[in-house]
Amino acid sequence: MQLEEIIKEIKPLDESAMQTARARQNTLTKPRGSLGRLEELSIQLAGMIANPFPSMERRAVIVMAADHGVVLEGVSAYPAEVTPQMVLNFLGGGAAINVLARQAGARIIVVDMGVAADIDDPGAKLISHKMGFGTANLAKGPAMTPEQARESIQRGIEIAEAEIERGVDILATGDMGIGNTTASAAIACALMNRNPEEIAGRGTGVDDDGLRRKIDVIARSLEINQPDRNDALDVLTKVGGFEIGGLVGVILASAASRKPVVVDGFISTAAAMLAMSLAPAARDYMIAAHASQERGHKLMLEWLGLNPLLDLNLRLGEGTGAVLAFHLIEASARILCEMATFDEAGVSDKE
Amino acid sequence: MQLEEIIKEIKPLDESAMQTARARQNTLTKPRGSLGRLEELSIQLAGMIANPFPSMERRAVIVMAADHGVVLEGVSAYPAEVTPQMVLNFLGGGAAINVLARQAGARIIVVDMGVAADIDDPGAKLISHKMGFGTANLAKGPAMTPEQARESIQRGIEIAEAEIERGVDILATGDMGIGNTTASAAIACALMNRNPEEIAGRGTGVDDDGLRRKIDVIARSLEINQPDRNDALDVLTKVGGFEIGGLVGVILASAASRKPVVVDGFISTAAAMLAMSLAPAARDYMIAAHASQERGHKLMLEWLGLNPLLDLNLRLGEGTGAVLAFHLIEASARILCEMATFDEAGVSDKE
Repeated sequence: MQLEEIIKEIKPLDESAMQTARARQNTLTKPRGSLGRLEELSIQLAGMIANPFPSMERRAVIVMAADHGVVLEGVSAYPAEVTPQMVLNFLGGGAAINVLARQAGARIIVVDMGVAADIDDPGAKLISHKMGFGTANLAKGPAMTPEQARESIQRGIEIAEAEIERGVDILATGDMGIGNTTASAAIACALMNRNPEEIAGRGTGVDDDGLRRKIDVIARSLEINQPDRNDALDVLTKVGGFEIGGLVGVILASAASRKPVVVDGFISTAAAMLAMSLAPAARDYMIAAHASQERGHKLMLEWLGLNPLLDLNLRLGEGTGAVLAFHLIEASARILCEMATFDEAGVSDKE
Repeated sequence: MQLEEIIKEIKPLDESAMQTARARQNTLTKPRGSLGRLEELSIQLAGMIANPFPSMERRAVIVMAADHGVVLEGVSAYPAEVTPQMVLNFLGGGAAINVLARQAGARIIVVDMGVAADIDDPGAKLISHKMGFGTANLAKGPAMTPEQARESIQRGIEIAEAEIERGVDILATGDMGIGNTTASAAIACALMNRNPEEIAGRGTGVDDDGLRRKIDVIARSLEINQPDRNDALDVLTKVGGFEIGGLVGVILASAASRKPVVVDGFISTAAAMLAMSLAPAARDYMIAAHASQERGHKLMLEWLGLNPLLDLNLRLGEGTGAVLAFHLIEASARILCEMATFDEAGVSDKE
């Protein structure tokens, strides 16, 4: 579907399924509310999929990779060649996301949204939606054209729709791209009208000089490009990235198909902010996986109104936190579906 | 093994395995430290099992049930008959711990440490170590005899040793017993020298009157019994419970066999405090699963020096939080063992 149709397709949570799920939680053999966030989450899942018996077994993580022209400004601790190298690592099964997805029984879909190298993929496992060999340097002008911004979202929509057609119950977002914390921080600054000092962190691990450079680059990108915070497409165009645009599409398509989408860390959250700007109703289909160690992430989650499930000082991306959260999300669904009621188990209820 | 031997058997973490694990973490294809607590935990696991390639696949949760004479004081929102009813629910597979253990591929061992009813168990799945039909009312005198306190720990040791002999990699603690948050709060107050107001919470959900009554009962139990905070066996004798004693044994036996033991919520943490009082070195083998919603739990974890993995507003017990944490613990072990190194994957390291 086209972006405009997708946005129209996103509906509120199903109140009736939520009421049924809430009522059922109160009949299960445990003190009411004693499973805390697992109970709340199960009710939200029921509302998302419009079914009071949610199953979250078929899961996938979409890892989108792209490069960023802004690396020329020295904003990352790693060279840009790491992006294609890590894409090969994803395809070879050796990265953190591979390990965690295997454990969680989740499919990985690796997408080249704009890596600055030709990637040799003899196994044909990589999905190529290359929008270019990296974005332009956002410190000197727009990262991409408005057409590219729209097209990157559109490609993300297509990828998510294909997975949903295959019967996935839940999707997670993941990213890879040297330089992409700079773009994500710039997006967050633009949308929240905040200073780069409040948002920018050390990414893959820049030192104090690197961080000062990064903050300066973000400030310049906002000054030069003047992104319009009321126009998410303009923000993506001017200070975004191809993989970030792709993730916006994944999130919107999930919401439009009533599928929960687990938002990973800093980069995915920037994409979620753009998605919510385009379609406020999409927010209800997002599950924040974790509180990233990257500065600004907490403010970004607050802006979205999301409360993360995990807080493990992660700052890797790739979808690692989101895939860890799959276990908790499955647990919440199974509690709702599988636990015995007081009546079924012959257990006395509260006096 | 006897308690005294078990205590002598508990050794410090293996520094050499930890060094190897730490060095390996720094060669894996991710920015150093970017998996935060998963990296730290993997190093700790290596130290526990004295092996830099920890496997956490074979897991079990030991759920110990018992009744408490103190329920006569009206400290719980549920009647005492719920303890045996919930034991039957565990055996029937309908409780929250059953659902979560199935998901986590964990065996459940259900133990009657002193339920105040005969339990009909046609499937012979229940392990009976009944120390009595509930403890005595700790508001009026000691909950048990010193011999019973020692014996309850000894039985916990035996149960854990049997599981370890079967080849389990990691154990989790779970509890069931109407009234056991009162006993656990009394233990914590005694060991930490704190007021009941700081520690006692609503348990299964008592109202304001119930909470005031509970605080008063705990204060009386400490006043009447005068437990010696430097003598964990005396504290267990005077204000403990049979299932709490059993869990102390499970924790100590795990530590003595160099197996990680995941400490669930409020009741398990009280048991962990007694275990650490008896054997300070046992602390290094404990993994705190989650921050319970029950008041005082945070102070108790701080006293132990443990930082919980999850914070999901849980307050159910049964081992539910511990079994949820299994997923994160397995993830940390698999990251260490399965990820590719920079060399193996041909990825450039930090500039």
